[in-house]
Formats: sequence, C-alpha cells, structure tokens
Amino acid sequence: MKPVRLAILGLGTVGGGALKLLQENAAEIARRTGRDIQITHVGTRRPRPDLNLDGIAQSDDLLSIVRQDNVDIVIEVIGGTSQAHDVVLEAIRHGKHVVTANKALLAEHGNELFREAEQHNVQIAFEAAVAGGIPIIKVMREGLAANKIEWLAGIINGTGNFILTEMRDKGRAFEDVLKEAQQLGYAEADPTFDVEGIDAAHKLTLLASIAFGIPLQFEKVYTEGISKLTAQDVNYAEELGYRIKHLGVARRLAHGIELRVHPTLIPESRLIANVNGVKNAVLVQSNAVGPTLYYGAGAGAGPTASAVVADVLDLVRFISTQNSASYVPHLAFQPDALADTPILAADQMTTAYYLRLDAEDHPGVLAEVTSILSRAGINIDAILQKPAQDQGHVPVILLTQPVLEAKMNDAIAQIEQLAAICAPVVRIRLETLDS
Amino acid sequence: MKPVRLAILGLGTVGGGALKLLQENAAEIARRTGRDIQITHVGTRRPRPDLNLDGIAQSDDLLSIVRQDNVDIVIEVIGGTSQAHDVVLEAIRHGKHVVTANKALLAEHGNELFREAEQHNVQIAFEAAVAGGIPIIKVMREGLAANKIEWLAGIINGTGNFILTEMRDKGRAFEDVLKEAQQLGYAEADPTFDVEGIDAAHKLTLLASIAFGIPLQFEKVYTEGISKLTAQDVNYAEELGYRIKHLGVARRLAHGIELRVHPTLIPESRLIANVNGVKNAVLVQSNAVGPTLYYGAGAGAGPTASAVVADVLDLVRFISTQNSASYVPHLAFQPDALADTPILAADQMTTAYYLRLDAEDHPGVLAEVTSILSRAGINIDAILQKPAQDQGHVPVILLTQPVLEAKMNDAIAQIEQLAAICAPVVRIRLETLDS
Repeated sequence: MKPVRLAILGLGTVGGGALKLLQENAAEIARRTGRDIQITHVGTRRPRPDLNLDGIAQSDDLLSIVRQDNVDIVIEVIGGTSQAHDVVLEAIRHGKHVVTANKALLAEHGNELFREAEQHNVQIAFEAAVAGGIPIIKVMREGLAANKIEWLAGIINGTGNFILTEMRDKGRAFEDVLKEAQQLGYAEADPTFDVEGIDAAHKLTLLASIAFGIPLQFEKVYTEGISKLTAQDVNYAEELGYRIKHLGVARRLAHGIELRVHPTLIPESRLIANVNGVKNAVLVQSNAVGPTLYYGAGAGAGPTASAVVADVLDLVRFISTQNSASYVPHLAFQPDALADTPILAADQMTTAYYLRLDAEDHPGVLAEVTSILSRAGINIDAILQKPAQDQGHVPVILLTQPVLEAKMNDAIAQIEQLAAICAPVVRIRLETLDS
Repeated sequence: MKPVRLAILGLGTVGGGALKLLQENAAEIARRTGRDIQITHVGTRRPRPDLNLDGIAQSDDLLSIVRQDNVDIVIEVIGGTSQAHDVVLEAIRHGKHVVTANKALLAEHGNELFREAEQHNVQIAFEAAVAGGIPIIKVMREGLAANKIEWLAGIINGTGNFILTEMRDKGRAFEDVLKEAQQLGYAEADPTFDVEGIDAAHKLTLLASIAFGIPLQFEKVYTEGISKLTAQDVNYAEELGYRIKHLGVARRLAHGIELRVHPTLIPESRLIANVNGVKNAVLVQSNAVGPTLYYGAGAGAGPTASAVVADVLDLVRFISTQNSASYVPHLAFQPDALADTPILAADQMTTAYYLRLDAEDHPGVLAEVTSILSRAGINIDAILQKPAQDQGHVPVILLTQPVLEAKMNDAIAQIEQLAAICAPVVRIRLETLDS
C-alpha cells in the first residue's frame, strides 16, 4: 500500500513538535500502523533550520498546499480563526482529512466545518484541541460511548492552574504570579484568553458537545476569569478544606444544559483538587461507569504533538478502509441525532457558593445576613468569622448549599443593602463534585 | 443496514450489567452509532427473572450459541479459563467477533487466541479486562499511539486498594480488613487472586504487551501480594511522607523489560498515591506526552458493562466497514512487529527500597548496617530510628536509592548475619514515579 501523505501547515511549537515526533518515533509508529507515513509538504513562512526537512516541499502558500494530489491529511496548526478557517475549508473541499489543534476555530466555526467535512466524506480530528496530550476526545467519544454522560468538570487551562497553584502554595498575588508565568512562557503577552477563561470556554464548548450530543455553542458559555481572585479568598477556602480551581463545567439537567467557566471551590479530598501547576485534568461523571478522571500535560510541543499524531494514526486506519463507516462522528453522536436541549442562562444555573462579606464589627450583622439567606431558602453549610482587620471590618465567610443563581443574586443584592456591609459581596462558586 | 446482533454468554454481574446497560442507554447509544444493536442470544444456566429477556433466545449450550448465524459479536463474561477458552475459540472459528472481560483467559491464552482471531479476520476486544470502566486499553492502543511508552504503574486491583486504604486510614490489620472486604462483596471467599497479586499480574501482562508491543508473558511477572504487610510499616511509610500501594509496574529498559506486582511506597504528593478505596488508576509515562493518569472504578456491574459495551460499539463500526483495515491490532502493534525483548528476572530489576530492621538497642548497629550498604554501593536516602519497643528492640527504617535487586539481596543477607539484628529484614519496594 502506498504511504499516507501529510502536509503540516504551521511549523511553530506544535507543528515542529509533530514533525519531530513523527521522525523520532517513526520506528515505533511503523510497528503500530503497518503502513508508511510520509510528510510531503510543510507550510511555513519562517525557516526552521533546526528541523530535518529533507525531501519535504516547503511553501508559504497554504491554499496551494492543501490542493496538492500528494496530500491525504492536512495538519492545521497555524492557529487563529481567519486564515485557518479558509485553509481548513479548502482542504475539506479537496477531499483531505484535517487534523487540528485549533480550539478557537472549532468552537466558533465547528458546526459549519464539520458539516462540510461530512458532505465531502472526510474527517476533522481534534484531539489536540482540548487538554493537550490527554486523549480526552477519544475517551469521551469512544471509551465512554456506552454511557449517558451526566456532567464533566475540567482544569483545561494550564496557565490558569499554574497561577492558582502558586497563589495557594506561596500566598502570592495574582498579578505577581501572572508576571512570572509570562516570563516562563506559560502565559502570552496578552493573557486575556487564558486568565479570563476564553480559552477554557473554547475547550468546554467542544467537550460539552461530545458529551451530550449538542451543536457547538461557544457564545452561550458563561465565562468568568481568575483575575479578580485574591490570596485572601484562596486562604479562607483552604481553612475550610477547599482548593480554588478554574473549572470548566458542563452539566446536563432535564430542562437544559449548564455551560460555565469560573473559579470554583472544590473539597481538597477530591483527586482533581490536587492537580497542580500547568497540568490539566478532566473529571467525567457518566451513568454506567460513574466518575472517571483523566490527567496529564495540557500544553507544550510534545504533549500537543502526541495528540496530533494520534489523530493521524486513526486517520491512517480510516484511509486504509476507504469506508466512512469507520469514522467516529465528529461530535460523538450522528449529525442528524444532535439534540436541541437549551443552554441555560447564567441566572438559571445552580451551584453552591462561597460568600465573603466585609462587615462592621458589631452584633446583629450575622443575624441579618442569615435571615436574608433563610428567607430566600438558601441553606448555609459553614460559617467562618475572622478577627477584625483594617478599619475594624470583619471578614465573614459563608458556604451555602446549591441554589439557583437568580435567587442568590437577589439575596446578595439585599445583603449589600445592609448598613453594616461595607463592600460588595465576594462570591465564588463551589462544587462538591459528588458522583 | 441490518442490526448488529449480540450473544451474551454469562448473565452474572457483568453479563446482566451489559444487558441492562444496552437496554437502558439504548436511545443514547443509537444516537451515537446510527445502527441498531440487537441481543439475539443469552447463554446462561441460571434464570434471571429480574432482567428483560423478551425476544432473546436463552440456552445453556454456549458452543451452540456461538455457531448461530444470527450472531455477529459474542460477549464472553462467564469467566474462568477452561470453558471460556473453548467457547471463544469456537466463536472465532465461526467468524464472530469477541468481547471479553476475562483477564485470566487473555493473559494465559491470549497469544493463541489473538493469532486465531487474526487468521479468521475477527477481533477480540478486551477493554473490560483491565481497570474495569477506565478506558485504559483504548487510551494506550490508540490515544497514546504516537508515543514510545517508557513505563506504567497501576493500581489495578480494587480489593487490594480497599484493604490498603483501610489499613492506612484506620490503622487496621490486614486480616481484619480482608474479612470486612469479603462481607462487603469486594473480595472473594478465596481472596488469593486479589491479595496475592495474581489478578493484578494478569492485568499487568495485558498492559505491558500493549505498551511495548511484546507477546503476553504472564508466567514471567514477578508477583508479590499484600498479605504480609503490617500496619506498622504502613505507619512508618506515612511518617516518611509515603503511601503504600499495591502496584503493577512495567518498565522498558534497554536490556529488557521489568514486569512486577508488589506493595510499593509512593511519595504522598503523587496523584496516584491519593487513589483510595476500591478505585483503580493507571499512570503511564510516554516519551512525547510525559506522564498521564487515568482514574475510575475498576470493578462492578456498571463500570465493567461500560467497557464491554464500548467495545461492542467499536466493533459495530468495524462490522459496518467490512474491512479489517479498521481494526486496531490486538496488542497495539502489528502481529509481525512484536518485539522479543526479554523479561528481566526478579534479581535483575532495579528499585529503591524501604527496609525495616529489628535491632538490639546498642550503639554500633547502625554503623554496621550502613557500612554493609555502603560497600554494596547502595545509597541511603533517609533513616528513621524509633524508640525501643518490646524486648528492648529498636525498629530502624532505611530508604535507599534505586539498586539492582541482586545487590540488595546480598546486602540483606549480610545484614541478617549481624548478631544485633533480631529478625528477618522487612523490605518493601519504593518508586518515586518521577517522569
């Protein structure tokens, strides 16, 4: 059989990593596939003299590369959503399979691209788009396929997790750790995508669709970053037996689906609460297997290349069968079987809460606060009152049981009206992650 | 397309669980596959009036069932290695795909059965044979396929992990917890398979073959149980910052492969050290992605059925393509590409050690012991000497750096010759599980 031929578009960290991995592990990969894989083209503007490109055609005309006859699979790792979109579409229309690590492209344009791929009888594989080297897409689309997935919660942005880990371990401030993360190359010069949760929301969009069989709906993800988190709250959470993690959560309820990215208190005894540094982890609750967790590197040349090349190896089998019945559906469910379950608005979501009040130090404040919560039907799980601080203010921390966010909004509005409450209430969601 | 037809052989916990799962999640599964799945036969001697068997033929003649024309996939969940072997072989020879949860059967007869399956152009799928509902077989054969896997370490027997967790949390004795595990149904009346590591060795055999591409070699696994472990050693390990877990370890070295199952000290900061109760977890170290970990339920009706049915759904795609190019090789690597790398004998393996000495309480003992270790080139990482106990004996605990087991055997023999050493040296292996 003739070799399967690849074009790698983009020779940055990921593209270079994929090329090197295919070369370095060539013997091991050949033992697995039994079919030769050949890189015929690379699309790049920048020279990469550190890479071995012998016998590989180089060009910066990406649209021309994806039209070549001697290309079976296009690896799109240029990033962004503009040129990448055009190139992927052109590749599909020329009958090429696509492997991409581009979560933004798929979260925002995936419905269109997958439809196009199905019409042209090719696959878009995207293992590298979520949680880097953790094979979470394959696990959820295939490994857990017998299950009805109930919810998932993931640490799916390594930069954010690095910052939170440092804040907790060393009591450092957000801004301080962010600066270090940028120096270490974990965070971009513009860190908005990472710390404001946009990157996590892209990934959550993909995970939720393959979990529940719903179209991609990035615009409906409730997204809250970690930039306002203080070392003080990290410490209080700790005292109460919790860690704060930046989670992406997708939960299927009878009347709708919650899609949300936000800082979250998690009981410290949960395995996922102990996932530290730049690592990622995804906890999936399914109706047959119960909770399962997947942990590993969420970024970097090697881990991302591992996912990209795993996709290539799946496609090699698909190409060898020359039969689209071998494909796993893009969003895990048949395109005509996607559900139109609504995505819930933020105030229709239900979570427990950590509330921090900045109160004047006199008797009766706590009674007023708890009676507001009680009237709203909000149950309190724990109260922590700290000694008076600057200006005689007393920090009061409350943990509540799960409550509809609309109710909590009302209750907080009332609390903030109290004369003895000196500052806006700090609220952080809390998930016990019980199965 | 006509439905894919299943025969379920064995209607115990797993078989009944698989049947119920296929029925309960039928709508979700149909949304995924786009092809109907029909259970045409069950093979059982026991009536199961609690199950819905409408329209399903029942018989206790398993060999006759696997010869039926209206069977595409045979699910073997009767267990054991005798009748199961005959039935699986007969199924293969009649062109049926097989799904099995039977680790003993595959670890001991897999080389023959896989060869036979390849000759008859069918697949034997075995996700449920290792770590229950964790899709570790799929992860290693497909998700990590771009990697050269260096080593893996797994908590792959839930009963043993339950016992160790209770011993640590509650300071209980092995025998005491075992009795409770038997009452809870976690451990069999004859617990040998679980507590002596045979079950874990079966599973490790499968994991090692798909990690490294080597034939199944169950008989070469070094296997040590947990029945001799004392609460005392669990406590001392704890004091030194370690947890004791019953690990299956497979490591690829240049000159051979280590396959071993034994109690193991692990630094408590490792995620896998915090996997408790009946849960399973597998940590895999690969050259591109680095360490990844997979966690979940290793046993039980739901989790095992989740794995069995996931295999069925893979096979549905294979059957739909009618092309064996869609198959992932049984042992992850092409049958003609398996390596003959030798499995190392126990004394050729290298690990760090926890040693506990029962010494007379007089000066000079420690000097004698450390000089024996030093002459053998064994480096000491930590020493813990406890106050004198019964009969004035002093427990001395040493943690060593990694050393060839043959060297350690020599050193221990010399230490046990010392007049001041009152009992055989207790040794437990230690793995830092560094990447």
